[in-house]
Amino acid sequence: MMSVSPPLQVFGFWRSIASFRVRVALNLKGLAFTEVPVDILNGAQFSAEYDRLNPEHVLPTLVHGETVLFQSMPIMEYVEDLQPTPPLLPKTPADRAYARALALVAVADSHPLIVPRVRKQLAAAFGAREPAVNDWCGHWTREGLQTLETLLARRAPSPFAVGDTPGLADICIVSQAVAAGFFGIDLAPFAAVARLHDTCLALPPFAQSHPLRQPGAPAA
Amino acid sequence: MMSVSPPLQVFGFWRSIASFRVRVALNLKGLAFTEVPVDILNGAQFSAEYDRLNPEHVLPTLVHGETVLFQSMPIMEYVEDLQPTPPLLPKTPADRAYARALALVAVADSHPLIVPRVRKQLAAAFGAREPAVNDWCGHWTREGLQTLETLLARRAPSPFAVGDTPGLADICIVSQAVAAGFFGIDLAPFAAVARLHDTCLALPPFAQSHPLRQPGAPAA
Repeated sequence: MMSVSPPLQVFGFWRSIASFRVRVALNLKGLAFTEVPVDILNGAQFSAEYDRLNPEHVLPTLVHGETVLFQSMPIMEYVEDLQPTPPLLPKTPADRAYARALALVAVADSHPLIVPRVRKQLAAAFGAREPAVNDWCGHWTREGLQTLETLLARRAPSPFAVGDTPGLADICIVSQAVAAGFFGIDLAPFAAVARLHDTCLALPPFAQSHPLRQPGAPAA
Repeated sequence: MMSVSPPLQVFGFWRSIASFRVRVALNLKGLAFTEVPVDILNGAQFSAEYDRLNPEHVLPTLVHGETVLFQSMPIMEYVEDLQPTPPLLPKTPADRAYARALALVAVADSHPLIVPRVRKQLAAAFGAREPAVNDWCGHWTREGLQTLETLLARRAPSPFAVGDTPGLADICIVSQAVAAGFFGIDLAPFAAVARLHDTCLALPPFAQSHPLRQPGAPAA
């Protein structure tokens, strides 16, 4: 791992799918970082200390000297600017846009619908109980997987989503597959996504970033 | 307006907030485009013809010769690559990341929670009636506005979100304010957002892109 000056600090949490993405990006680049856990299951994201870093109270936050960054996609693009090789984005504008769009199917159109604050609001606004909330999360997770499956089937991975090296699109697609695991969703109907998940998780930068490999995670 | 070869075609709709964003980006660049309406209120996004362009069945889609792009953020980044001036993103990596993060507070963490497919699913899954669904939309729209307000208050606009020219962050923040208008949300508690909205809407590229200025829009 390459050390960075000033050092890179990620405020993340084992269970946070967006923290997983940033961890993979840093590991693919070989950039050293330390992670400070913010326990979102216990409301630590609402502390005054974390609010100063991230007034949206979400994870992750990247701190790099005076620079404080939030939202996983811009953080990954910053990491790409900081250390251009190996690249996380393809070379042509059209391919870059396609990679970013694949990423956003997960990051914008699926994942924000199942995060803790949304689950809480479903209970508060509609009296939804846990099984119904889990069904809701399953529904949107499958919708995202189905869109990704259709896109990957139309433009076959070779073997990664946009070319022969893993990047931003792969990170976000795999994050969606990992989230599916938390809801016990079978990936079998999403064969191309499942293959990409397996291909990526065979690589150390993905494997060592997995939520269940982080401090504080349950055994299985 | 500069004509582009092959020509740029936007599949959009007056009511689509994401289409508004792409329209502003193209207009800020002075790039000529034509818009093909896809009536999302009547389910036209599910036609076989549109499915071939966009299997996620959302708006907008940008067609540029053989290149077919979806998701408003990657489309705007593509437009930036196509025509670098005037820039939509700031120069330094840290400022670029901040601009993209501001954008994603709206694009990823607020807007996807209030789109038609989510409104329908609230009714289907929880029997939510229209007033409760509108409350849900109001809740998440305000949450997004509050986060943006806090961020803009901490780093004051000068006069745009990240510097002295309008760009990606401004487009997405203003799109959130425009969406708020659809739900009758008063912008007064979000003073910095409201000022940015007014500053931007005074510019022709924003004004002429406004949903209510598009073909098919209601009179008010």
